[in-house]
Amino acid sequence: MHSAIDVIRTKRDGRQLTDEQIDWVVDAYTRGEVADEQMAALAMAILLRGMTAAETARWTAAMVASGQTLVLDGVRWPTVDKHSTGGVGDKITLPLTPLVAACGAAVPQLSGRGLGHTGGTLDKLESIPGWRARLSADEIRARLDDVGAVVCAATEGLAPADRKLYALRDVTGTVESIPLIASSIMSKKIAEGVQSLVLDVKCGSGAFMKDLDQARRLATTLVEIGTANGLRTSALITDMSVPLGRAVGNALEVAEAVEVLRGGGPADVVELTVALAREMLAHAGLSDVDPAEVLADGRAFETWCRMIAAQGGDPEAPLPVARYVEVVTAPETGTLTRLDAYAVGVAAWRLGAGRARKEDAVQHAAGVLCRAKPGDQVQAGQPLLELHTDRPDTTAGAREALAGAYEISGADWKSTPLILDRVGAERLPAGSS
Amino acid sequence: MHSAIDVIRTKRDGRQLTDEQIDWVVDAYTRGEVADEQMAALAMAILLRGMTAAETARWTAAMVASGQTLVLDGVRWPTVDKHSTGGVGDKITLPLTPLVAACGAAVPQLSGRGLGHTGGTLDKLESIPGWRARLSADEIRARLDDVGAVVCAATEGLAPADRKLYALRDVTGTVESIPLIASSIMSKKIAEGVQSLVLDVKCGSGAFMKDLDQARRLATTLVEIGTANGLRTSALITDMSVPLGRAVGNALEVAEAVEVLRGGGPADVVELTVALAREMLAHAGLSDVDPAEVLADGRAFETWCRMIAAQGGDPEAPLPVARYVEVVTAPETGTLTRLDAYAVGVAAWRLGAGRARKEDAVQHAAGVLCRAKPGDQVQAGQPLLELHTDRPDTTAGAREALAGAYEISGADWKSTPLILDRVGAERLPAGSS
Repeated sequence: MHSAIDVIRTKRDGRQLTDEQIDWVVDAYTRGEVADEQMAALAMAILLRGMTAAETARWTAAMVASGQTLVLDGVRWPTVDKHSTGGVGDKITLPLTPLVAACGAAVPQLSGRGLGHTGGTLDKLESIPGWRARLSADEIRARLDDVGAVVCAATEGLAPADRKLYALRDVTGTVESIPLIASSIMSKKIAEGVQSLVLDVKCGSGAFMKDLDQARRLATTLVEIGTANGLRTSALITDMSVPLGRAVGNALEVAEAVEVLRGGGPADVVELTVALAREMLAHAGLSDVDPAEVLADGRAFETWCRMIAAQGGDPEAPLPVARYVEVVTAPETGTLTRLDAYAVGVAAWRLGAGRARKEDAVQHAAGVLCRAKPGDQVQAGQPLLELHTDRPDTTAGAREALAGAYEISGADWKSTPLILDRVGAERLPAGSS
Repeated sequence: MHSAIDVIRTKRDGRQLTDEQIDWVVDAYTRGEVADEQMAALAMAILLRGMTAAETARWTAAMVASGQTLVLDGVRWPTVDKHSTGGVGDKITLPLTPLVAACGAAVPQLSGRGLGHTGGTLDKLESIPGWRARLSADEIRARLDDVGAVVCAATEGLAPADRKLYALRDVTGTVESIPLIASSIMSKKIAEGVQSLVLDVKCGSGAFMKDLDQARRLATTLVEIGTANGLRTSALITDMSVPLGRAVGNALEVAEAVEVLRGGGPADVVELTVALAREMLAHAGLSDVDPAEVLADGRAFETWCRMIAAQGGDPEAPLPVARYVEVVTAPETGTLTRLDAYAVGVAAWRLGAGRARKEDAVQHAAGVLCRAKPGDQVQAGQPLLELHTDRPDTTAGAREALAGAYEISGADWKSTPLILDRVGAERLPAGSS
């Protein structure tokens, strides 16, 4: 017999929760037997006292067990997924999913919508006319078998404990706990039923994790949870002090993703897409396939078109365009040495690309287009940023967000790496499986 | 504009809450604007991060401000109260209240009912036929003016924030926080409107505070809160490793209190009653009155009779007697060297003297009578404890609670002090006011 108070006291007093306590409290909370106020007290105790790797892995497993698991055993390709902790201009899922599928793995990208200054993959894809996010489990399996790639909304039945707990943490000041963040992410991914997983842990002003130490702790926790739950798991820690690519906003990002799939696009987006693809392919036993080649020769783009069309979208249809575009110009001549990801994310959000509350709709055409990136030479008066929106009254707020967000100077600019670190088992040798 | 999440984060991150944050969150919680789960997370953060003396005093003031305050300005005597943190056989309120009133102060004892192994003053007095616990504010003031003493139920309107928060802490593992315990006690006492207050902080197995360090921290916090809120406040820390007196249980304790008021009774009950009376009288500017004399010469008993009669009770009526009495006898000859307060409290509770849930009724006649106390010589076969109950099926559980609770040995027994420490301003010189 367990009691919520005993479980709370155990963690409150700095002791380790037993497997039985974790299984019970997560299940009882999902069923409503443990009350919100009890789970809130426990979440705060976890935030302040921490959880060991073993506790965190078990907590995640209990959240997975609170609902259904997507069964992917029948899929004829090795299954692998990628998850990003969220950044500004992070459209990597869009080119990456069809690219990895074109290389021979099956990628079920069960995604979410955006909240706050980072966008959501579903919001981006919904700017494509006709495309629909909701698929049944059978449709997901069918798409993996025929296209190899599917991006869709997570089905309701996966990890219901996480959904309930996430909403609670959001209103009780208990979001910022690495074990709780990590178990929330991983419970959804494990419930997806994939064999392996690559995490893109963002680090910098535009990310949840502001410094490398924090990002490493999160990445390590994520990899430990995955491994303990039987998934081949690794993580890249990547820079999010500057927006990824040039486009920030739903349709703007889709357009940029399509450029990349057609063999062009910004170098950083290409670099990260290929690096993540290599990680995923190594886990899938496909290290001998070169994703850079598959991207360059159009095979990834072909898979993209099939993936979009299979979900009702028209890959050839023109994307929505904003009714107003305002240009922010360079105030002086020199090198752009800084462009703050967080500020650009907030500006795009204010222009209408994001939502403040879950119920809000997003403007598909709204966002920010970066006409220059750090390292670029700019002339005074030259366009620096484009503000896209359907509502011109939002540009003042966007400009305010961007005040102090960029710097032009005569000093030398030194490029910094995009991929900051890697966490996980030794990289698999090419060709192993 | 305050938000619950900001307040929670402030404390979670180890920072001090501002006066404005405390005032807002206590008021908003009372009104239901701050949700139970938010207050539960905050309570856990307070438990783990602590509160300064200033925060605790403000928190208490905010709980007082959440409801009404009893106005005692018109009462013609100096007003003073005593509060005990709860112990086994702690019937001190019964002789103390009329004693201090007979010495010239007015004592409004707004009391509670028992829960768990320590009894409640109202439960004890309700064993007197006819006596009623509920009085209006006007009746309380009238009793203070004519009798000088009143023991009654706290009116609903006092410190509603505390009532709500206490119920929440009870189910969320957030009871054991000294700032929260202290502010809960003090908010009710400050709302009573008295000018001064003496605390009896119990320490030992039968008390909430098991060791002297903890008890000192609680006593210090209580005195700090009282002083910061304009009350003359002091605390005695007293031993609760052995039951107070010989009687544990409602009617049994009333009978013992009457013995003390008639100039007899156990030495420890008399000692503590007189010591607390001296503290209270010093605060009230009545140091020149000797409570030992007022107790011995029958004046306190006379006030007792008037106090009971004024609330409908018959001080001469026979008290209820249990239908069954079982005797626990000494297993060997020697000195009784130990009699554990907690075990005796649990035994009395199991016999029917206490309640498990707030809704339960108590058996007025049930309890334990200690026929020997530590230091007494006992003969094998001699009565050690009497188990009083109306339900003979409860005695097995009571005996089980008492297994290992006492020790008879040939070794020397050394008496230990009843009053362990005192916390508060310098004792006022006799006669000052």
